[in-house]
Amino acid sequence: MTYPDRFHFQAFRSLFEQSSGDEKWMWRALELAWQGVGLTSPNPAVGAVIVKEGVELGAGFHRKAGLPHAEREAIADALTRHSLASLKGATIYVTLEPCSTRGKTPACTDGIIEHGFSKVVYGAVDPNPDHAGVADSILKQAGIAVVSGVLKEACERVLRPFAKRITTGVPWVIAKTAMSLDGRITRPPSEGQWLTNPDSRAIVHQLRASVDAILVGGKTVRRDNPRLTLRGEAASVEKPQPWRVVLSHSGRQSLPQDYHLFSDDFRDRTLVFEDEPLEAVLRKLAEKGCNSVLLECGGRLMRQFAEAELIDEYFLFYAPIITGGEDFGFGLGQHFHASAELLEVQSQSIGQDTLIRGVVKR
Amino acid sequence: MTYPDRFHFQAFRSLFEQSSGDEKWMWRALELAWQGVGLTSPNPAVGAVIVKEGVELGAGFHRKAGLPHAEREAIADALTRHSLASLKGATIYVTLEPCSTRGKTPACTDGIIEHGFSKVVYGAVDPNPDHAGVADSILKQAGIAVVSGVLKEACERVLRPFAKRITTGVPWVIAKTAMSLDGRITRPPSEGQWLTNPDSRAIVHQLRASVDAILVGGKTVRRDNPRLTLRGEAASVEKPQPWRVVLSHSGRQSLPQDYHLFSDDFRDRTLVFEDEPLEAVLRKLAEKGCNSVLLECGGRLMRQFAEAELIDEYFLFYAPIITGGEDFGFGLGQHFHASAELLEVQSQSIGQDTLIRGVVKR
Repeated sequence: MTYPDRFHFQAFRSLFEQSSGDEKWMWRALELAWQGVGLTSPNPAVGAVIVKEGVELGAGFHRKAGLPHAEREAIADALTRHSLASLKGATIYVTLEPCSTRGKTPACTDGIIEHGFSKVVYGAVDPNPDHAGVADSILKQAGIAVVSGVLKEACERVLRPFAKRITTGVPWVIAKTAMSLDGRITRPPSEGQWLTNPDSRAIVHQLRASVDAILVGGKTVRRDNPRLTLRGEAASVEKPQPWRVVLSHSGRQSLPQDYHLFSDDFRDRTLVFEDEPLEAVLRKLAEKGCNSVLLECGGRLMRQFAEAELIDEYFLFYAPIITGGEDFGFGLGQHFHASAELLEVQSQSIGQDTLIRGVVKR
Repeated sequence: MTYPDRFHFQAFRSLFEQSSGDEKWMWRALELAWQGVGLTSPNPAVGAVIVKEGVELGAGFHRKAGLPHAEREAIADALTRHSLASLKGATIYVTLEPCSTRGKTPACTDGIIEHGFSKVVYGAVDPNPDHAGVADSILKQAGIAVVSGVLKEACERVLRPFAKRITTGVPWVIAKTAMSLDGRITRPPSEGQWLTNPDSRAIVHQLRASVDAILVGGKTVRRDNPRLTLRGEAASVEKPQPWRVVLSHSGRQSLPQDYHLFSDDFRDRTLVFEDEPLEAVLRKLAEKGCNSVLLECGGRLMRQFAEAELIDEYFLFYAPIITGGEDFGFGLGQHFHASAELLEVQSQSIGQDTLIRGVVKR
C-alpha cells in the first residue's frame, strides 16, 4: 500500500477527516511528523498530538536534534492555549514510541507521566532494539493506558531513514534522476540543459530539503558545476544545507576550485571522497549523522549504486521526449545479477512530465 | 488537451452527462466512433446519433468498409424502434462531415435529405481536400441547418490515422514498447520473459485490436517467435487479424518457416519486407489500406523509426524494475538531430506498472 508523505500533505487532511478513533488522530500526528523530515537527523522525524474529548489541545513535531521531542513540543503547544489542569486525562498520540531515556533532552515518558495523561497511543516501536517496547512498561506502571501499533506501517514509513541508519549503520539512499522517455539524461546540444519542467525541478528541491546529504560524481561536477543547494520554497531557515558529497577518482584537487561547491557560502558543507568503496562512503555519512542521502549522480555511478543494491528508494522523472544519445540514467553494462524490484510504485503527472516513485523490495 | 479514447470508454459517459446542447450529443457520437477504430480501414471510424427533443432515437458507427456509414447505421437503428415519420425534424450528430459522393455505399447527404432531418451537426471536416465542406452546401440547399466544428479537436483525434493516410500516403504509426524503468527491454535470464504485468499486456491486446498492422524486426521474430495475434477480449469476430509485418535484412527465407507467423491460421496475414527503406514499407502498407501501424519492434529498429521521425504516437509501458543490461527500448547511438517531443501526455498506473502515452509534436 502507498501512503501520503511530504509530497502530498493535503492527503493527510482527507485521511484525518475520513477516519475515526485512534487512527484519525494518528493521521494528524503523521502529518506533523512529515513536516520534520530532513530537519531532525540524526534523530527521527516524529509528530505528536494531544486530544481530549475529541478536541485537539496541542500538536507538535520534532524540529531539530537538541530541541524538544515531538511529545514535549505538543505539550508546550497545548500549554500556550490551555491550563495545565486541562491536560489531565488527555490522550497523546505519537507516531513513534516515546523515548524513555534521557538524552540531550529529558525522557518523554517522564513528561507524559508528569502532565497526567491517561492514555498514550503510538504507531511504530522504537527501531533501536535496546529501547523497543521499554516505554510501554514504564507508562503502564504509572497507570497510563498504552495502545501501540496504530497505523504502524504508515508510522514506520516516516521513520525509515532513521531506522535504517540505526539498525545497519548505512543511511536510507534515495536515487533521483531525470530522463527522457528512452532513458537518456542529456538532449541534443541545441536544446538546452533541462529535460524536465520547472514543476518537476521544484519537487527535486523539496526532495533535497528532505535529506541530509546530496551525492554526485566528479564527472557531474566537472560538466555541470552544480550548486546542489536548496532553493525556492524548499529553502528555509530551519533546514540546514545538506552535505554536498562528491565521489571522485582523482580527489578534491582535481576538481575546479572556483566551482560553486568549493567557493560558495556553503563550501564547508562540501565533502569529497577519493576512490572509496560506495558503501564505505555511505557509512561515513551515517557516522556524521545522516539518516538519508540523495543520489543525483550520472549514469555510471548511479548504475554502480543500483548494482550494489545500495539504493532504497527511487524518484524517477521522465521528460516527454525521445532523444537518442549515449548518456543513460543507468549506464551501460550487463544485466544486474537480479533486477531491483520497486514496490509502493506511484506514478504522477507533472504537467507533461511523469514522476515514478517506488521503494526497493528487499 | 487530452481526450478519452477507446482505452477510457467510461469517460465518454461522464462527458456526455456533464455536457449540454450540441456538445453533449457529440460526446455520444464520439463514444460510438471509437468503437469502430481498428475495424473500418481504409475508411475512417465515424459515429452518429439521431436526437429529437432531447431524446436519442438511434445511434450507430461505421463497422467495416463496404458496410453502411455511421449515418446510415444510426438511421437504420432508429427505424427499428421508431416510425419513419418520427425522424422528420430530428437532428443527426456525426463526428465527421457526411460524405456527399457515392462510393461503395450511397452518399450520406442523400440519406439525410430523404429522411427529413432538419439539422446536421458534425465535428471534423472531411480531411480529403476534394470533399471538405461539400456536404454543407448540399445540405443547406435542401433546407437543412448545418452546424460544423462541434468538439472539432476531439473529432479530429479519432480520425487521425485516416487523415494522415489520406493526406500523406503514410499510415499513423504507433510505437509500443515495454521497458524497465532504466529503459531496458530484457531482464536477467533467470527472471522470465515478461517485464510488465498481465493488465498491461491486456492493454497491448486492445491496442493491437485498434490497428491495421503490427510491425516487428526479423531479430524479434528469431528471438521470440511471436504470434502477434489478437487474444483475450481484444479478439472479436468483427476485427480481422492485423497484418503482421516483418522487416528483415535477409528476407523471408532466412526466418524459421515453422514459426507462428509463417505456420499458424493467420499465415496469409504475414508480410515480410526485405531490406526496404522504412518509409517505403509504410507507404506500401497504406496502399494496402492500412490507416494505422503498430510498431512492436526491438530497440535497434525502434530507434531507426524514431530517428527518421516516422512515429506519431507512443505507448510506453514501464515495469517497476531496474535491471541493467544492454537491450534498450531505443537502441544505442548519437543524439537524434532533434528530440521527438510528446504532447497530450497521459501517465497511468497499471498496478505497479506505468503507462506513458503521448503524440509526437510536429
